Amino acid sequence: MTSRTDVEAGLRKEMHQCITDAVDQRRDDLSDLLQGLIRVPSQTGEEGAAQAVVAKRMATDGLATDVWEPDPALLMPYADHVTMAPGFAGRPNVVGHLAGSGGGRSLILNAHIDTVEAGVRSAWTCDPFGAETRGDRIFGRGACDMKAGLVTHLIALAALRDAGVQLNGDVYVQSTVGEEDGGAGALSAVLRGYRADGAIITEPTNLAVVPAQGGSLMFRLRIDGRSAHACVRDEGVSAVEKFALIHQGLLAFEAHRNREIDHPLYAAIENKVPINIGVVRAGSWPSSVPEWLEAEGRAGLVPGEALDTFRESFLTEVDAVAARDPWLRDHPPAVDWFGGQFAPVEIPADAPLARAVQNAHVAVAGTEPPVEAVTYGADMRHFVLTGETPCLMYGAGDVRLAHHADESISVSEVVTATKVIALTVLDWCGTAEIGLRTRWS
Amino acid sequence: MTSRTDVEAGLRKEMHQCITDAVDQRRDDLSDLLQGLIRVPSQTGEEGAAQAVVAKRMATDGLATDVWEPDPALLMPYADHVTMAPGFAGRPNVVGHLAGSGGGRSLILNAHIDTVEAGVRSAWTCDPFGAETRGDRIFGRGACDMKAGLVTHLIALAALRDAGVQLNGDVYVQSTVGEEDGGAGALSAVLRGYRADGAIITEPTNLAVVPAQGGSLMFRLRIDGRSAHACVRDEGVSAVEKFALIHQGLLAFEAHRNREIDHPLYAAIENKVPINIGVVRAGSWPSSVPEWLEAEGRAGLVPGEALDTFRESFLTEVDAVAARDPWLRDHPPAVDWFGGQFAPVEIPADAPLARAVQNAHVAVAGTEPPVEAVTYGADMRHFVLTGETPCLMYGAGDVRLAHHADESISVSEVVTATKVIALTVLDWCGTAEIGLRTRWS
Repeated sequence: MTSRTDVEAGLRKEMHQCITDAVDQRRDDLSDLLQGLIRVPSQTGEEGAAQAVVAKRMATDGLATDVWEPDPALLMPYADHVTMAPGFAGRPNVVGHLAGSGGGRSLILNAHIDTVEAGVRSAWTCDPFGAETRGDRIFGRGACDMKAGLVTHLIALAALRDAGVQLNGDVYVQSTVGEEDGGAGALSAVLRGYRADGAIITEPTNLAVVPAQGGSLMFRLRIDGRSAHACVRDEGVSAVEKFALIHQGLLAFEAHRNREIDHPLYAAIENKVPINIGVVRAGSWPSSVPEWLEAEGRAGLVPGEALDTFRESFLTEVDAVAARDPWLRDHPPAVDWFGGQFAPVEIPADAPLARAVQNAHVAVAGTEPPVEAVTYGADMRHFVLTGETPCLMYGAGDVRLAHHADESISVSEVVTATKVIALTVLDWCGTAEIGLRTRWS
Repeated sequence: MTSRTDVEAGLRKEMHQCITDAVDQRRDDLSDLLQGLIRVPSQTGEEGAAQAVVAKRMATDGLATDVWEPDPALLMPYADHVTMAPGFAGRPNVVGHLAGSGGGRSLILNAHIDTVEAGVRSAWTCDPFGAETRGDRIFGRGACDMKAGLVTHLIALAALRDAGVQLNGDVYVQSTVGEEDGGAGALSAVLRGYRADGAIITEPTNLAVVPAQGGSLMFRLRIDGRSAHACVRDEGVSAVEKFALIHQGLLAFEAHRNREIDHPLYAAIENKVPINIGVVRAGSWPSSVPEWLEAEGRAGLVPGEALDTFRESFLTEVDAVAARDPWLRDHPPAVDWFGGQFAPVEIPADAPLARAVQNAHVAVAGTEPPVEAVTYGADMRHFVLTGETPCLMYGAGDVRLAHHADESISVSEVVTATKVIALTVLDWCGTAEIGLRTRWS
């Protein structure tokens, strides 16, 4: 005798197989879509052309699309958290809505369409916008951060449709702008009313479930020196030499913070709160002592840390270094904070959404996924803190390849992530039996 | 009884008085001319407007003017020594010729019209092109380096004319372009045939006679790192951190060279061969580990050093630092040399021209002038090495104020230098008695 539970379990297994088969059958579609997106550059601020491709695909896939440019007036109260320059003309968000039949939990599937710039071309062994394939991998700017994540969402929903699944809950696939500069796009989606019972961002987590995310702040240091002709350089004060002292101080500060932080999900991460100097500009003439230096960088925070408290301790550190140098004592470096501020955020590691993704991962991969924190800031905080929507990250790809020359992603890993997202959607949103009968009967 | 020598000495003294009085009477003219020149910006590459003012003044003063744009084809064999970009269209040299009556030594009075850029405006307490007067000083870019030097020459010749002096030898006042970038203008004048029995450049020597001049080379360092997202910055290699090692190595190299150098005129100079890092550019994004850094600088040489030998030892030093770092060992910094190369140069400290200026200084100031070397490179080398014209520098102003915010010069000191140059011209070129009779008789 077969129990009702056994029947349900068997039916579920069959449904899963049907959906994952549908993903496998879309492997070429998945690759083509990802390559197509990589070939349309979408550096932060220039997302329009790529978003047009996304909107067209969503419409083709039967999603009801909502395309709008974020409204600076609505974002203004959050101006400290996202960058609004250079405005949003020609930089729309795109959301595709798959309506549920009712009674299920709603889910937001978010990915950002913007990428960092390609960087130095000579560091690449391929065209950053060529989407070249080598074996299982596709190369290009945005390949893993995170056009593959967007493709994951789109193919997952397409596979569910292929499998004849009618969901109970609503699903919203979001392709948002400006994440690399604070996430004005995701925040604009929240403010437009896109809230749900859960949200998944397919940032490249290497197929780990990530319920905790570090925060980050961008800072700008301005150091004044005193100019002099190079031939009497000792009469001047080199802003470059003074910066070296500040930089050393910040690295010591980073080491000190790493020793102090005690958060279980960060235990395995060696540099939990990296402080990176990413840009330096100094001086105007080779034979003048540089009288100014400007450095831009990014500092990491862990969940539990307040942005204001961190800013204060950073300034205290800069002041302490300056106090040890006669010139800097009288000419203290100026620090300002710019760009988006990313508050660290976390949801419980055993939240229902986390369990749903874990279960789907087990169903697809046969093993428990790692549950980890990450050191980078992204759009999670807008969903959790402003949208009151539990949010986590899970996706294919290695963040170590992001922002890098030769950024790339494994197609097989994207296929796996797509299966997991599809099964998570099924589980989270639920399905009416009727929708399945055509295939499973 | 009055001897012929006594008569001559008395006559000479009277002549001197008459000429220095004439300079004093032109004090307002001198200030006005200097202020007018400061108010016409003439950063290297944009000298045209200022040269038009100079040519007009020379014509008014009765000098036969020669205005021409340097010919890149003629300069090409010297391409390593001067910068020819961005070309010379609209950047003419101007030479004013005062013909002697014959039988005297000829003299070139050279000044460069170009200046470095104004730099950071906020570092100035006045408009860099306002030519503001405060007490005895005039402020502005080029005030001491070296529009005052050009004014010195022009007013000296005007005063000689006021005093009714008819010179035996020819005098050529040169206002040349591009000195800050290698001296293409002065070299072009030499190649056009302007050679003489002596040449004086009125660079700001603080009224010291300078028969020896350091050389200099401009270098560009390119350091490669490896990019990574800031959140995993330890996966990357910061070009900024690697540059710090190279910079420290270059400062140690400078210290070593200072200990080794043994040149009598440099004994009093603490930093005889400064190595200055003037410009640094690194990275493109605050939250990416900077994968590149470019630094531009200037290294000093003393007379007796060969450019090639120095370049070799510089490269050896960079390589030695790189060899001590695992990353740099495999990714050695690239060094290239750019802009004008300034060979160091000297003439004997007791050369006739040096003695002439010393005597004139004694006549005006009542004390012996210092005889010194300087650590900067300028146009002396073109006259001495290419033009075979003995050349020294002597002028008002402090090179410590050159290339600086609030560059300024003392009008009184320019007046003194003008008297010394006028008397030097008189002594060097000689005069026919007839020319003086109208005033001294």
